[in-house]
Formats: sequence, structure tokens, C-alpha cells
Amino acid sequence: MRALTLGADGLSLRDDLPIPRPRAGEALVRVQVAGICSTDLELVKGYKGFRGILGHEFVGRVEEVGPGSVRAPSPLGGEGRGEGPASEKEWLGRRVVGTINVGCGSCRRCLSEGSEHCRQRRVLGIQGHDGAFAEYLTLPIGNLLSVPDEIDDEAAVFTEPLAAALRIREQVAIPPSAQLAVVGPGRLGLLAAQVLALTGNRLTVFGRRQASLALPGELGLETSLIADAEDDGFDLVVEATGNEAGLAESMRLVRPRGTLVLKSTFHGAATVDLTQLVVDEIRVVGSRCGPFEPALRLLAVGAVRVRPLIDAEYPLASGLRAVEHAARPGVRKILLWRESERRDR
Amino acid sequence: MRALTLGADGLSLRDDLPIPRPRAGEALVRVQVAGICSTDLELVKGYKGFRGILGHEFVGRVEEVGPGSVRAPSPLGGEGRGEGPASEKEWLGRRVVGTINVGCGSCRRCLSEGSEHCRQRRVLGIQGHDGAFAEYLTLPIGNLLSVPDEIDDEAAVFTEPLAAALRIREQVAIPPSAQLAVVGPGRLGLLAAQVLALTGNRLTVFGRRQASLALPGELGLETSLIADAEDDGFDLVVEATGNEAGLAESMRLVRPRGTLVLKSTFHGAATVDLTQLVVDEIRVVGSRCGPFEPALRLLAVGAVRVRPLIDAEYPLASGLRAVEHAARPGVRKILLWRESERRDR
Repeated sequence: MRALTLGADGLSLRDDLPIPRPRAGEALVRVQVAGICSTDLELVKGYKGFRGILGHEFVGRVEEVGPGSVRAPSPLGGEGRGEGPASEKEWLGRRVVGTINVGCGSCRRCLSEGSEHCRQRRVLGIQGHDGAFAEYLTLPIGNLLSVPDEIDDEAAVFTEPLAAALRIREQVAIPPSAQLAVVGPGRLGLLAAQVLALTGNRLTVFGRRQASLALPGELGLETSLIADAEDDGFDLVVEATGNEAGLAESMRLVRPRGTLVLKSTFHGAATVDLTQLVVDEIRVVGSRCGPFEPALRLLAVGAVRVRPLIDAEYPLASGLRAVEHAARPGVRKILLWRESERRDR
Repeated sequence: MRALTLGADGLSLRDDLPIPRPRAGEALVRVQVAGICSTDLELVKGYKGFRGILGHEFVGRVEEVGPGSVRAPSPLGGEGRGEGPASEKEWLGRRVVGTINVGCGSCRRCLSEGSEHCRQRRVLGIQGHDGAFAEYLTLPIGNLLSVPDEIDDEAAVFTEPLAAALRIREQVAIPPSAQLAVVGPGRLGLLAAQVLALTGNRLTVFGRRQASLALPGELGLETSLIADAEDDGFDLVVEATGNEAGLAESMRLVRPRGTLVLKSTFHGAATVDLTQLVVDEIRVVGSRCGPFEPALRLLAVGAVRVRPLIDAEYPLASGLRAVEHAARPGVRKILLWRESERRDR
């Protein structure tokens, strides 16, 4: 099959890879469309030393389930459990998205909190598990969720990053009167901003350049240049730039006793003003994967607008160009289509 | 009067300073004993550019109250309000400790949360307000708390740092089953460790050298060399070293989704592994001043042992030597006595 793989010599497009075989409890998913996110770009730069097929945002169809009719040892506590059909066979032909963490299923963390922080976890397209920039992928059936018909592929592919945006609300109680800021109007920042604006809170999206604020403005979000932001005026600030300058700006915005959520993957160490953190009693919260069900619900009713975030769509065969495009400054979502599934918009 | 003041040319002992005059709503406190803390040492090194009399840990006696019989405009929300005598005059002769933040009393922060994060605040011996390494200081009456007779001066002087240790429990819910770690068995670390151990939680105090673990051992605390600590085994880690190496070690100890409390004053920026912070969804909480009443209650019943933390006591006249002593590695609490009050132990 065709896939975009990361090797010692960097990213390459291959046409000669074997279609993966689903094991017991796993599904083989025919990928229809995949999204490129900042973590993919970091992985290409060497983050985590991942080798294999990239990609963790996808929508596809279940084409096969693994051998054996036993009930799948689904990763306990994963977001995917419970909702889907009872028997593995019933998954055949279903349109699905999938959570990305595959835990050992037996350690204390898997049993108490889910697979996201299992020490032995594999992560789709990120760690020890081939990803979605391919014609096929495998995942445990317990990781899958059916996609309602109201959500087309172009929207469904946003389920994973939208879930990550929703994760903020699982970690931090946000009173309706709290003043919110999102720093970085990029692909993830605009999902976080839309999700948080749904709560009725006052929210401002901050960017460095006026051009980057056009889209959030069109999405109905309040915007401001970061240079115009008043010091320590915000109860909760979401850092969505992933760079040190953005972090410093976010720190400047957060009020004493306020909360700073780090939503972007930072690559490596960064300098942080710990004096301010202690003296102002700031709370910093690292935030990663989130719940898929509410993301699907929001997409189904159109409460979060994702299509305006798409900057370009490429066939998988042009994957190298697509990744290059995604890495340009200011570019938001780039999608990769299996050729035959590509629809004109 | 005599005092230890910080000027452009560093720390100096002066004998020619005027006794401060209490304003309306303020008390003049005759300082009996004061404690040297790490923040004082950072101030001497240039932190915050403070100029004036150092010192914010003290116990003393009210010798005078400011002119005017109107009810004092006590800083709202301060820890000192409510408990003391109703009339200013009734404070005369009382043995007191005092909270250190003096807010404007009228801004939104003062009115809603107290004076600790008022933008215009003065802070005893730290910012815009002369401190306790002196024969006299002034503070708003609203900042004062009477010291119960059961607590002698040598213990009462620990009220402020003990309150700071208790602050952790105001900021973070700590389930009884949580595994706790305190990194840094120093003057503040051992107060934090004792306070947290009172809850019944399993707690380990970590140090770099075996010698530094003798005292926590004597205090009945479980101890371990940091080099022997297992990775990510702790739900809550208190960083009490104030240095970058200690911070990195604390990060190593905290489990995914765990909490790291920064309890020491860091001077300036430090490097933090933000990748781990995001991927492991760590929560970092800056922690500063705490509640005095519970600190006094714990001291009154002897639930926290503070006397073993005292490494030496000096007369104020030897204050320069005392500060030098406090800055030596491994030294814990150094006290400064007004000469006539010095008691032999």
C-alpha cells in the first residue's frame, strides 16, 4: 500500500508497503482522509525519534476485524469503549474515527485512568504504532467510534484535534464569568477558541499579525493583536503557539492565581519565568488528548466550524508536498485524501 | 533604631534609623525575634531590586497604634481580619505575628481575593515596606494576629513560613491515598513536609546528600536520596529547592497527570521540559503566602516541630554574620534577636 513514512533519512512516500494485518480485537481501517497537525511536523523534525507511518487524525471505514470471535480485550477506560456495536463483526463497513492511545490494558494506569498515560502505550502515528498517512491502518476495536451520518469526512477528520481542545474543559473548571484568552490563532488554537467560546465566556484570540486574525474574526471570535493585550487581564489563557515567545506572551496575559493551559506540543525545553509563576501563584496545566464523544456531538450539530480551517487538500500521492505546505507559517489544516475518495469542493 | 538594611551598596547594619511612626490604622510593633528565609537571601542578591529594611518573619509586641480612633481600614480579605480585639487600643501590649501583604484595599483584587495579589501592594521587607530585621516595624492592624500563650517566641516566628507551607493545601485537593514527595529538605521543605504528613498521606522527603536527610529522619519523616527515586511515582511533588536542578528532579518524580507545586522563590527564568509537561499533562502550581490561623493552631498544639530547624540564633547587632550563616549550603533557620530579648536555650 501507499504511505508516508518517517525513516532515518527523513520523510518518504512509499508504494510498496504491506497492508497491515489486524490482530485479535483489532480492526483494519481503510483510511479515507487524514489531517496533518503540528505534532506531525515536530515528528518530522525528530521529536520522539519516531520511525514509521505518520498521522493520527483520520476518518475511514472498517474493512476487516481480527481473527477470533472472542470479545476484544479493549483498552479499558479508553474513550472508545461502550458506545459501538456489541460484536466485532458489526463494525465491518462502519465509518469510524479512532482514539490514538493503545495501552497495555493491564497496568494500574490503564485500569484506573485509561490508556493515555500507560507507560507501555503505543500511539497511532506517534509512538510504536503505524499511523494514518496511509491507505490502511489498524487499531483496537475499543479505540473506534462510529461517525454519525450528519458528519461528512472533511469534518469528521477534525474529531481528534477537537477532542484535544475539549480536554481543557476536563482539566480546568471554567466559571462563566472567567475571561479567556487563546494565544495563537492556528489549527489547534481556533478549535480551542471555538470550544471555549461555546460556554458563554468572554474570549479573545490573540495573534502576532493582523493577517492571522482574519479567520478567527470570520468565525465570530473576538480578536486582538498580542501587542495590544493588557497585562494579567485573563483568568485562563490557552497557549497554542508551541513556541517560547508565545509562552512568554501567554504568561504576561494570565492574571495572578490564573491558569495557563499548554495545548501545543513543545519540542524540548523552554525558558519559563518561574519567579512570576510562584509570586503570582499561576497554575500551568499541560493538556493532551481529549474525549471523542462530545467532539462528535459538536460536529454533528455544526456547533464548531471546521471547514474554514482547511487551507488545502492533497492526494496521499502528493503527501510530501502536503507536509511541506502544512509547515509554512500561518497555514492551518492540510488534509490528505486517498485518491479515489477525493471529492471536489 | 538598629536595623539591617539593603541599599545600593548591599546589606548594612545601621544604628541611626528613626523608629517608624504608625499611621491611622497601623500598629508600631517592637520586634522580638525575626527569621531569615531564602527570599531574604535572594533579595540580598538583587531579586526585585528591594531597598530598605529586610525581614518578613517576626514575632513582636504592639507598642503603639496610629492616631485617630476610627475603625482601621483593614485590608479586606487579609488573613488577619476578624479574629483580634475590636478596638485598636486593645492591641496595645499584645504579642503578635503579622501577614506580610499590604494591599490598596480598594481594587477588585483586594476586594475579592485579599491583598496578596493587589498590583499596588507593599510587602513587608520585600517590596515598598520596611521589614522585620529591625527593632521596630509598622503594619496595618488588620494584618496582625495575637499569638496564644502556648506558643513561645522561638516557635511563633515560624508562623509565616508555616502558613506558606499550608498554602499548598488551599490550592490543591490532596486525596489521602496520594503519594507525596518533597524535594529539598531545607527550611521551607521541612515545614511543607511536616504539614503534608499530618494528613495521613505517605510522604517522602528527597535530598541530594545523606547528611541533609538526618534531620527529616529525626522528625519522623520518610527520606530518600533523590538519586534513588523512582521515576514518576508521585501524585504530588513539592519543589522546595528553588534551583533548576531541583526542579528537573521534581519533574522526574511527578506522575502523568500529577501536580508539581513550586514552593520556593526562583530568581528569574529557568529551563523547564515543556514536552513532558504537555505529554504527561502535569499541573504546575506556583505557591506563595498562606493562612496564619491554622499555622498558629498547629504551633499551639505542637503538631509541627519547628525548634529542630533552628541552626543558630544571633543578636540583631550581628545581623550581617547571621545572613552570611543563613546563606551557607544546608543551613536551615537562623533567627535574629533583639539583644535584650535573647534567651539562652
